[in-house]
This record gives sequence, structure tokens and C-alpha cells, in this order.
Amino acid sequence: MKYIIIGGVAGGASAAARLKRIQEDAEIVIFEKGEYISYANCGLPYYIGNTIEDRKKLFVQTPVSFGNRYDADVRTLNEVTAIDRERKVVKVKNLRNGKEYEESYDCLLLSPGAVPVVPNLPGIDLPHIYTLRNVPDCDQIKQRAIEQLKEGASAVIIGGGFIGLEMAENLHRIGYQVTVIEKAPHVLTPLDWPMAAIVQQHLVDKGVRVVPNTALKGFQYREGRLEVLTDGTEIFPCDMAILSIGVRPNTELALQCGLQIGESGGVQVDEYLRTSDEHIYAVGDAIEFPHPVTGKPYCNFLAGPANAQARIAAMNMVYPESVRYNGSVATAIAKVFELTAGATGLNEQRLRQEGIPFQTVITHPAPHATYYPGGEPIHLKLNFDPETGRILGAQAVGKKNVDKQIDIISLLLKHQGTIYDMINSEHAYAPPYGSAKSPVMFAGMVAENIMAGLMKPVQVEELDAMIDRGEEFQLVDVREIQEFKTGTIANAENYPVDELRELMEDLDPEKKTVVFCEVGLRGYVAARILMQSGFTEIYNLIGGMKTYRLIGKHNRG
Amino acid sequence: MKYIIIGGVAGGASAAARLKRIQEDAEIVIFEKGEYISYANCGLPYYIGNTIEDRKKLFVQTPVSFGNRYDADVRTLNEVTAIDRERKVVKVKNLRNGKEYEESYDCLLLSPGAVPVVPNLPGIDLPHIYTLRNVPDCDQIKQRAIEQLKEGASAVIIGGGFIGLEMAENLHRIGYQVTVIEKAPHVLTPLDWPMAAIVQQHLVDKGVRVVPNTALKGFQYREGRLEVLTDGTEIFPCDMAILSIGVRPNTELALQCGLQIGESGGVQVDEYLRTSDEHIYAVGDAIEFPHPVTGKPYCNFLAGPANAQARIAAMNMVYPESVRYNGSVATAIAKVFELTAGATGLNEQRLRQEGIPFQTVITHPAPHATYYPGGEPIHLKLNFDPETGRILGAQAVGKKNVDKQIDIISLLLKHQGTIYDMINSEHAYAPPYGSAKSPVMFAGMVAENIMAGLMKPVQVEELDAMIDRGEEFQLVDVREIQEFKTGTIANAENYPVDELRELMEDLDPEKKTVVFCEVGLRGYVAARILMQSGFTEIYNLIGGMKTYRLIGKHNRG
Repeated sequence: MKYIIIGGVAGGASAAARLKRIQEDAEIVIFEKGEYISYANCGLPYYIGNTIEDRKKLFVQTPVSFGNRYDADVRTLNEVTAIDRERKVVKVKNLRNGKEYEESYDCLLLSPGAVPVVPNLPGIDLPHIYTLRNVPDCDQIKQRAIEQLKEGASAVIIGGGFIGLEMAENLHRIGYQVTVIEKAPHVLTPLDWPMAAIVQQHLVDKGVRVVPNTALKGFQYREGRLEVLTDGTEIFPCDMAILSIGVRPNTELALQCGLQIGESGGVQVDEYLRTSDEHIYAVGDAIEFPHPVTGKPYCNFLAGPANAQARIAAMNMVYPESVRYNGSVATAIAKVFELTAGATGLNEQRLRQEGIPFQTVITHPAPHATYYPGGEPIHLKLNFDPETGRILGAQAVGKKNVDKQIDIISLLLKHQGTIYDMINSEHAYAPPYGSAKSPVMFAGMVAENIMAGLMKPVQVEELDAMIDRGEEFQLVDVREIQEFKTGTIANAENYPVDELRELMEDLDPEKKTVVFCEVGLRGYVAARILMQSGFTEIYNLIGGMKTYRLIGKHNRG
Repeated sequence: MKYIIIGGVAGGASAAARLKRIQEDAEIVIFEKGEYISYANCGLPYYIGNTIEDRKKLFVQTPVSFGNRYDADVRTLNEVTAIDRERKVVKVKNLRNGKEYEESYDCLLLSPGAVPVVPNLPGIDLPHIYTLRNVPDCDQIKQRAIEQLKEGASAVIIGGGFIGLEMAENLHRIGYQVTVIEKAPHVLTPLDWPMAAIVQQHLVDKGVRVVPNTALKGFQYREGRLEVLTDGTEIFPCDMAILSIGVRPNTELALQCGLQIGESGGVQVDEYLRTSDEHIYAVGDAIEFPHPVTGKPYCNFLAGPANAQARIAAMNMVYPESVRYNGSVATAIAKVFELTAGATGLNEQRLRQEGIPFQTVITHPAPHATYYPGGEPIHLKLNFDPETGRILGAQAVGKKNVDKQIDIISLLLKHQGTIYDMINSEHAYAPPYGSAKSPVMFAGMVAENIMAGLMKPVQVEELDAMIDRGEEFQLVDVREIQEFKTGTIANAENYPVDELRELMEDLDPEKKTVVFCEVGLRGYVAARILMQSGFTEIYNLIGGMKTYRLIGKHNRG
């Protein structure tokens, strides 16, 4: 069998290696239009930021070493320009000499990846506007930084997604003054506002300027300096602009040869990762696949799924229909200075778009035993189905052990897990690593309390809406008086939970009442006391003051 | 309803809090024979080692604060001496004044914990021999350290389990010369030898002496100094000895009142955590429960399960048979100096005892992207059912991200997960947190290769046995020549994998052949090349040189 693989980065290289291991006499030709194969795509921002000092470390394999190990014909700087499905040949252009030729295949794998979205705006082709997708992009940015970086040099990053923020940190690290311009109301849109707000504040604390709700309109040069133009009035002069507003599946070849493209714009594949042509498989950023929760196809642009797909596609290319791919729940993470921000599954916006009913809990658990040094809280948001308890999505932000929580919830989410599975999860506990109740268990327990009717939740946004419309209700801060004095919400009154049983006669049991504490636990205890003492309508503020302080509108100093 | 809770530490305190939250008018009396409730049991070694400096941090709640919050009658220094099940009363001795009295209950929770095993050996009652189970134990050890610690002071720890090694680290930290005496062939017996060997070597590197295969025989004083006597010839003088040879369920009261005790020595409970008396529930270290893998009851002595059980028992005490407990797979972890060592499920010894067939893979994955700084490998051992792929147990040792791998496998293990679930798991990937293929996925893939017949494994012990009995076979080191020169196995010959296709004609395809590399990956590639080139019997060394160097017998310099 002769296999052709188009694209030699994550998906393509993995598939070739697996192919050869299961079929030693496979004839494999890899076409890569770039100069490199199997390089560390996700490491590029860290090379720019000098966290990775040695450029060689970005290259897992060279074309020669890879070719030797897997007896594969690796042709870098050779671009496949067309696929002739009838004749089962590809047309190739050797970019070194411009010569064109054909190559035949028995079975073909498309792994062309994604291309950065570059909007057709005025000045888009001016110098010193970069995207970061591959090694040449990275080299250009690095070169610019080396040549031009001077005191007060500044960079504007357009787009505050995971990669935009990785770039913000890394450019800041080498001395740039960094501004992040984001069209959405906040950075990191896979995260809901209560979580994204923590990241956004951290960026500001680190000296990065964040400009949300602002759309790119173009670029211009004035007095020799690049300026970023937006739909706002401010102009952003800078020495370098990074376009990081997203990517789209590279479907050029698929379109050319008439393969089916799906509703979300990716190459359509079946569960065996086979395209609409049975001799052509596709993997990675270029494909779409049904989301395990919504059942609707989507593109995820993540390295983990690309690698997993490659291994499966290789198997099916040799033994058709032998292994099924089960989709991705879009689990993603980024380091943003001292914080880690991760997400899995669906955020509120997606849930609303899909019309999926959901309830939310926000917790602020310690990353390990509170008495063990160095444990600033994790912030964890869980979106779940209030009828069935099914996990729909989760997001976490913190300094330690964030990835662990996201990975565990991701695993459950993918297996149609519920909040009960979170409660019943078992984890390795010793003081440096966790608490007897893990953050995952704890969030599950809070959700269970809501589902069991032990607690009625109110979200920060809902509370603010109640205040805004002048609704009449009792607002009760159940923290200690010292905590109350450092700041509370609007006209809240203080009834410390440990004295609540004596003091509650001053409250009206017939009146709607919202209780809150710092994180939600004492609020829950207070809510239980009041609910079981005849109060008819008690709500506990989800996330407590810790969340309110960040995103609430009626903070009282 | 009037509830009595016996034992106010992890399980008891958690249950009381939950009870009150679901039943505000519950009358709750907590009897704790010690002075403290709800304290940080697992933090005690870290207080001794000054990692936790403030003793107050060990106390999550005081009897008064807990009593206030949960409207509970907390009676510390009150010991329940007997339970009269017929009259539903407990007999109590107030340890403050020696007075005895009775207290009635509607429903009772037993949470008496475990007691340290103290063997009846000569000299066992001599001074400066300690166990570490509660706050007074801890205070005594700390006091001894403060009074007596001098240059060259030494401590002997008898028992190299998780807590023994935590004590080794913490006593070393404050200046003791530490010796660990272990009856078994190696420390950390929940881990199999290839994993435990890494920890043992690390202890030695840190200056802790480890004496395995050595059983305690007694203590004596000579010239004013404590000496530890063993079944070996050496005598171990020291300034302090810590007995850490295990605990057993505290079943004193259960036995007294005739509750059913199970086959592994714990209080027998049903899936609702109810004892053989329907008015008495039990949780924590005192109970036994069927292991989800073996189905056989066992005691696990872990804080996580105790807390989970407490929440479930409380619910069932109010609403009988409402929530089921689903058991624990004994997931445990400890920090040992710079290393983390964790385990879940069954080790080889247990699997052999139970007659469960298993296969093993050992991998040495990077804890995150190899090009991202600071990533020494994790060592991961997976025991699985070679017929079904069911996960039976896993152990990991390393400096970073060990807890994450163990937690994920633990979750799968408890849900009867397989190696295919490991492969299909989805994780949050960015260079600082992981690789595109996670250690969990990777171990699953190696296991799948074995199950699919793509690779025949040979374990280090098996290879050594082959060498020892003079079996005739080809031993092929497929690493680069520079690696080969730094040391290999017995009479291995060097055939670098990337040249193997040309060089293999020097090998005899009819002869049994064992290939190996540094960690196993290149060995697998080499095995595939040879198997598919007509070699009839090819084995790949599991764990490669990294494992062989540690536990192999025929290292060649």
C-alpha cells in the first residue's frame, strides 16, 4: 500500500509513525509545504519569550531523522496543489525549484491544519503585523524583537484568546509593553465572565493593558510608527502587532477535489475519520466532528485531539473501520503569568445558543490542604444540567492544580458523567496535593445541594438585577463582623452565621432573603438554618463575596 | 431525632455538619475522647518538620466554634466506654473528672478511627519510642525534638510506608539523621519494586539510610541511649524511634456491643454504611468495605474515603437507604523529599494473592512538553488485565504532575475503566502542563500495543531470569552508540534503531530476540521493524534501560 500524507506537523507525523509501526512495508510519502515537520507548534510563544532558549528544542524530529526512523519519504517544501480523486494522484509543486509533478496513492491522509484568520482590513499588509502559526511566523517575530526592542517598545495583541494571552505574557517577559485588544466583553471567551474576570484582573496587575469590547478596524503608519485602529476613538501606536483573532480549518485542497465540507466549515469525516471519499482520511484542525455534549459538529483546533485522531486514522487506513473516534469536549488550558486558566465542555454562551438548560456553581476551594503553605484558592465554575445532573462544562482559574481539576472533569464530561460522579470520584490525597474533599468533589456537592433543594442559588448577575430593579428583599452578609467591615454588597446587613440562630428573630421569615459569605459555604450553612426555621424564600449567593467583588456592580467599601 | 457521634475527627465532624444541614432540629452529641476535634491529622508530620509553623493551623475547628456553627453538643475528653444497643444508650466517662454517665440515642454513628499497631516486643514501653496518630503524639515528638535535638542526633523510623516516609523527610528537615527500617524488601509496599526503587534511591540520595528486609525485634537502652533491635545483626542507636508499622481498625466498642466484624477485621457495614444494628452506622478507618476491583472487603485507612463516607452516612441516618457508598480503590500519595509517589488499585503482590491475571507496562513520560523547561520524567507503572484491558492498578513516581496521572487513572479504575478509556481520555494541554499525548494516554497506548499483539513485553525480572538460567537469545540495544557506551545490559549488542533496517541482516531471525532502548519507545519501533521483517520471536523490554538500571541485575558499565 502506498500512503500519501499531506501535512507533516502534529497529525501527519503521528499518523505516519503509527502507519509504519503497523505496516512495515507501507510506502509512505509525506508532503509538507513548510520547511519543518513534527515541530513544537504550541511551544512557539515560549521560544519568543525566551522560556525556551534553544531554537533546536522546537524540533522533535528533522525530516531526515523522521524519514530514517519510519522509512518514510519526507518531502518538505513540497506543496500539494491538487488532488485528483479519480486517478488517485496528487499534484505537487516543489517549492525549492518550482517544478510540478504528480504522485499516486492508494490511501491519502489530509492533515493540513488551520490557517490564521486575517481580515481584509485597511493596512493589513503593512510591515510588523504578524500572525503566529508556524516556525517562519515565529522567527519573524523573534527577529523583530531582537532588532527593534528598545526601552518603551510596545506590542498590541489583537485577540485575547489562549494564544493571544500566551503571547501577551511572553512579549511582556522580554520587555514589551503589551496591550490586548479584544472584541468580546472580556478575554478568554471560552471562560464565562466570573472566571475570565480573574484572568483579566491578573493581566492588569502584571502591567498588561486590556481593552475589551473593541474591534479591529485596520492599521496605519504615522510618523514611521505602526498604529492599530479600532471601532473605538483611541488609536494604539505600537512597534509590533500580533493578529490572534482565531483560525479556520484549511479546507483548500478538500474544496478543490470536492470533498464534503461540514456545517461548521471543517472537512466532514465519519466516526472512522474517513472523508466523503473512502480513500481519503482527514485529521486535526481541518476537520469538524460532533461534540459529545451537543451532538453538533464543530472544529476545535487543539493539539491533543489531533494526535489522538492521527493514531486512529492510521489504524483505519490499514484496517478500515477498526477504531472509532469519540470526539472532543474542547478541553483547553493556558498559562497566563502566574495563573493557569482552563476550560472543558460548554460555556454559558454556547449553552444559551444551543438552548440547553443549565445551572451554575462557583467555588473557591484551596488547591491543597489549607494548612499546607502556598495555597491560594482555585476558582472553579461548573455548568450542569439541573434536571439530570449531567456535567455540561467547567472552567477553572488559579495558581496550582488547575489542570488536574479540568482533566478530571473533562474525563467525566466525555463519558456523560454527572455531578454525582464528581462527588464519588476518588483522588490521591496528602496535604501537599489536595484536600480530603477535592475541588471536583466539592463542586459536585454544591451542585447536588441545589438539585436536592437544600439550597436555592442566586448568581451575581441575578442579584445585581434584583438590586437594579429595586426589588424588596433582605440581603444578609453572614460573615464575621471584621470581614463585613472590609466591604460588602449594597445595603447588606451583618448576621454572622455562628450567631444566626439567636439573631434571626430580627429578620422577616416571610420576606425573600439572599444570604452570602466569602465563598459560599457559610452562606449555605446559614441558608439551611433559615430554611429549616420557617423562612420561606432563601437564596445563597453563588461564589460569595469572592466572586461578587470581581464582577458585582454594587460593592460597598 | 437524637444522634450520637463517637469520634470527632475526620468522619465524625463531617457527618455532624452534614446531619445538621439536612436536619436543623437534629439533636447532636459528639463524643471525642481526645482533646481536639476536626484537626488536621494528615498535617502532623509537616508540623513536626516546621513546614507548618503555626500549631493553630492544625485545628480546622475548635469544639466551641464547631458546636456554635452546627448547634452540636461537642464533648471532648469524654470517652464512650460501652454501647447498650437494647436500651439505645452509651456509657460515657468524662476524662476530666472521672465521672461516668449515660446518654441515649435514636441513631448512632461510629467513627472511632484506627489505632497504631504496637507490637508486644521487649522494650516497647521505653521512653522516646513514638507513634504518630494524634495531636498528643505529635506534641510529644515535637517536644522531644525541641529539647533534645543536637548535632548528629538520629531518629529511626520503623516502617517505610507513606507516613513513615513523610516522617523521614520531616525529621531530616529539622536536622535528624534518619534511618528507615522496613520489614519488606523495599519501602512503600503499595508500589511495586520498579517504582519503589526510585523512591528508595531518592531517600538514599537525600542522606536517609534505608534498611529493607529487616524486622523489628525490640528496644533497649545502653549507656543512656535508645537502641533499636532487629532480626539483623546490626544494632541501631538513636535519640528517637518512630513506630510506623501500620494501623488497625479501632473495633473496641463494636466488639463490646456485639456488632458484626468483617473478615478483614473492620466493622462490617452494608452499602448504606449501616452496621449489623440498623440504628448504628459506621465510617472511616474502623470499617471494611468491598474493594471495587476484587469485590473483597478491606480496610483502607485513608482520609478521602472517610470524608466521603461521612457525608453519605449522615444522609442515610436521616433518610435511610437513600445514598449508596461505592467503595474505594485505595488511591494514596505522599511527598518524599523532591519526589511524589502515588498509587491506586492493586499492586502485583495483591494481584498474585487474588489470583488475578495481569500484564504490566512501565513508561517514563515527560510531565509536560519536553521542550518546556523543568521536566524530569514521571515513572508510571500500569497493571491491567491482558484479556479485557481492564485497569487493575497504577503507580507513579516523579517530581511534577504525578498526582494528576494517579487521579485520572483512579477515576477510571473505579468505573471499571479499561486501557482504551485511558487512550480516549481528553486532557488540558499546553506546554507547561502536559504533552499532546498525556502520560495516561501513552501508558494506555503501550498496553493496547501489547493486547493487539503488536509488541511482546518482557519485564526486567523476566529478562534477568533468562540471563541467569543461561538461556540463548539475542539481546539488542537499539539506542544510539553514545548511549550504548554509557552502559548497557549483560552481553547486549548495539543496533541503533534508525539503522536497523540495514543492519538487521547480522541478526538471526529464527532466534529469540529481546530489544531495548532507554524508555521503551524506540524498542517498540525496533520490535515492529523486526517482527514485520520475519523475526519470529521478538520481545521489547518494558521500561527500558531507565527501569533496568534501577532494578536489573546485569548492568554492564
